[in-house]
Amino acid sequence: MFWPHKHILDIAQFTLEEINYLFSLAENFFEINSRQIKKVPVLKRKSVVLFFAEPSTRTKTSFDMAAKRLSADTFSLSASSSSLKKGETLKDTALTLRAMNPDAIVMRHSQSGASSFLSRHLDISILNAGDGWHAHPTQALLDAFSLYRHWSTFQNKTVLFIGDIAHSRVARSGIALLSLLGASIRICAPRTLLPPDIKNYPVQIFSDLHSACCDVDAVICLRLQLERQAAALFPDFHEYAQKFCLTGRHLQSANPKALLLHPGPMNRGIEIESALADSSKSIILDQVASGVAMRMTLLYLLLAGSKNEMEGKNNVHHSGP
Amino acid sequence: MFWPHKHILDIAQFTLEEINYLFSLAENFFEINSRQIKKVPVLKRKSVVLFFAEPSTRTKTSFDMAAKRLSADTFSLSASSSSLKKGETLKDTALTLRAMNPDAIVMRHSQSGASSFLSRHLDISILNAGDGWHAHPTQALLDAFSLYRHWSTFQNKTVLFIGDIAHSRVARSGIALLSLLGASIRICAPRTLLPPDIKNYPVQIFSDLHSACCDVDAVICLRLQLERQAAALFPDFHEYAQKFCLTGRHLQSANPKALLLHPGPMNRGIEIESALADSSKSIILDQVASGVAMRMTLLYLLLAGSKNEMEGKNNVHHSGP
Amino acid sequence: MFWPHKHILDIAQFTLEEINYLFSLAENFFEINSRQIKKVPVLKRKSVVLFFAEPSTRTKTSFDMAAKRLSADTFSLSASSSSLKKGETLKDTALTLRAMNPDAIVMRHSQSGASSFLSRHLDISILNAGDGWHAHPTQALLDAFSLYRHWSTFQNKTVLFIGDIAHSRVARSGIALLSLLGASIRICAPRTLLPPDIKNYPVQIFSDLHSACCDVDAVICLRLQLERQAAALFPDFHEYAQKFCLTGRHLQSANPKALLLHPGPMNRGIEIESALADSSKSIILDQVASGVAMRMTLLYLLLAGSKNEMEGKNNVHHSGP
Repeated sequence: MFWPHKHILDIAQFTLEEINYLFSLAENFFEINSRQIKKVPVLKRKSVVLFFAEPSTRTKTSFDMAAKRLSADTFSLSASSSSLKKGETLKDTALTLRAMNPDAIVMRHSQSGASSFLSRHLDISILNAGDGWHAHPTQALLDAFSLYRHWSTFQNKTVLFIGDIAHSRVARSGIALLSLLGASIRICAPRTLLPPDIKNYPVQIFSDLHSACCDVDAVICLRLQLERQAAALFPDFHEYAQKFCLTGRHLQSANPKALLLHPGPMNRGIEIESALADSSKSIILDQVASGVAMRMTLLYLLLAGSKNEMEGKNNVHHSGP
Repeated sequence: MFWPHKHILDIAQFTLEEINYLFSLAENFFEINSRQIKKVPVLKRKSVVLFFAEPSTRTKTSFDMAAKRLSADTFSLSASSSSLKKGETLKDTALTLRAMNPDAIVMRHSQSGASSFLSRHLDISILNAGDGWHAHPTQALLDAFSLYRHWSTFQNKTVLFIGDIAHSRVARSGIALLSLLGASIRICAPRTLLPPDIKNYPVQIFSDLHSACCDVDAVICLRLQLERQAAALFPDFHEYAQKFCLTGRHLQSANPKALLLHPGPMNRGIEIESALADSSKSIILDQVASGVAMRMTLLYLLLAGSKNEMEGKNNVHHSGP
Repeated sequence: MFWPHKHILDIAQFTLEEINYLFSLAENFFEINSRQIKKVPVLKRKSVVLFFAEPSTRTKTSFDMAAKRLSADTFSLSASSSSLKKGETLKDTALTLRAMNPDAIVMRHSQSGASSFLSRHLDISILNAGDGWHAHPTQALLDAFSLYRHWSTFQNKTVLFIGDIAHSRVARSGIALLSLLGASIRICAPRTLLPPDIKNYPVQIFSDLHSACCDVDAVICLRLQLERQAAALFPDFHEYAQKFCLTGRHLQSANPKALLLHPGPMNRGIEIESALADSSKSIILDQVASGVAMRMTLLYLLLAGSKNEMEGKNNVHHSGP
């Protein structure tokens, strides 16, 4: 298959065919990651900048692992060490990084649209690792890939998102992708944590978690940003947890094979009952493993793919890694 | 020799035979580190996570050097960047790291027993790089290896630890290991810096540094945690230094060939007289070099060793690196 | 050419012939950096410590890229993670790093003379990446190399430095190097930002930016350290910018082909008009690319060079990378 994308910015850029192609390639990388020897030489001598202007453990480490398993070199720039602190604009920092000739920049930034803005000014691949409340496409892809590995299809599947939809790039990208794949989407959240344009979302809205869980095939619990409490968007954790913390009781009316996801880091007992997070229904750790595989897939397509095309070997996409 | 250990958690896990085996392998790596080309390919394509939930320069860099000299990839997670800050439990952070399929996790944590706890929940190698006041086995191994390189034997040797025994994982692990090796152990400390269970330690206790130094073969000065002063465990540095700062005068009654060690970073003039730290008696920088060699040895045994066994090549242990 | 230097400490160490040799080698590395495959194996199995006791993005990342493109391993130590915070002296930290047997230490430190001090105590290569207000030789070299790539010669060229000369290691090293190369140097700054020994500088001093720009061939705008305002060295940014912010109007009397440089990070609208920074006159991003190439050159000469000599292959310098 021809891969037309230079950047990974938002779920809206993908066709259904491309998503399925990503899943099939990611299966290969997932398998590679379970081998004794997990490293493959496809991005040997390539360099990937990990530019995280917001703190991150798992996403950054996941991209770092993905890049190094493909034999690329990585370069980390964090918020605290970055020149952004010295008053430099995002664009100048990015142009500076670009001038050092890396092959891709993976970036997280608190401003919505930051990655997309840079992709218009830089002539190398930009991978959005989360931009403000806007999008987190690689998270959505890894969540969907985790479900795909269990389900193979999204037809007749219902997925429920619980929690802070308004401020969640995970929810925004996840809803867009799972809808595209054919799943029905429900959301359940306090009214104050619904986005103002909720009517435009292809979702069913629930305020009661018991009703929301009825017959669902998967539940994605969102992380509650603890700092929002100060903004009085919800009264307190105890009250929130009583209504919106997912427990085994809620799942009694769900599909008996319902799967549980959480993008992490979890606040146990607030977003999800601790025992449930550790139960056999939980695929939270599968998500992490899927994340490395999916990010390997994307880096491979952007960097090995485009190069091979330039070198006239564009059949590499058909045979996979 | 068959190497039975999957994790490095505490000195208590080792037999005397195993320690001597570690020393003999470490000699090889020590020699490799003095070559122009210090890198060997034994852990090529392996990945090691360096998860330091407490700040560290030398231990982290030492493990990083050790892993990369064996050609492994490393992944750093520091206290400040870690999800622990976001309220995630240690176990969840560790399970997340594990799900990314690294080959080992080197970890430092302020909680005693943290590494041991994780080794029970994770199916990959855990190396304890210091857990609270409990243990710092690789420091003890490198200290003993430094002495071994000078002495070849610990029979009829007396080693003195000076300083904050109560809060020192270095002392706890060091005393255990040097006792096992056959050395006699003395400690010298203000009463407030002795552990409550001091009677169970295989040591002779001194309150006067001059008496403590009489005929000793080595002195290990411990680092004084400056923040303890606030807790009023000792009156002030000046008063501490007057009684417990090791000087040339103290060593007049020691073995003329007595060796000086310090785990670093040193507070010169508080724990040890500055000129003494730079004298020919000091093997403080040998300790650092021994540290890289010892950590190469441990990573080699845990990662190359276990893999080779699984591949049926368990004779690699006999021939060494 | 025989390369006599073990360390890179200050511009004063170089002869004109050596600078020209650096430029000719750097051209090769610059070209390598524009290839699809930018990595070369000349420092394979070498290790470079990046010890930055002051925050830095571009210089640290530039050295990191340079080292990894030559296939060396790098080890980062930042101010915040370093033992310096724990009260260790600079010398002890450096001796500790040295004891781990890296091949070079790149260091930035707030104390003038820090690198030079260490070069006298350590027997491995030290590269000064900025020491206090004293020197920043690699920045001067990359700035001059950027100009060299456009000009080929410095004869009959006039270069103007604008801004905080007093506290700028970039200015100090840049003036020394460009003078050596034969350029005429002007400076333009508020009187409070001139160094006390300004009379010893081989420069013409201007207080009016319009006069200063007349017929110049290049302008190097210096970064204003925002924290100096507190020290009342200049009244406020607005007032500073009115007199010393470089604009298109100032350049009307300059050489029509005049080039603009800035070491970054820029404060747009304070040191340089934003549109001018993005104009075709600006070679600010060339500087960044030149920086990686120049640092590759220096690491190559210090590490591959010296080793090859020891191995008796000292003809490698003649043929280049």
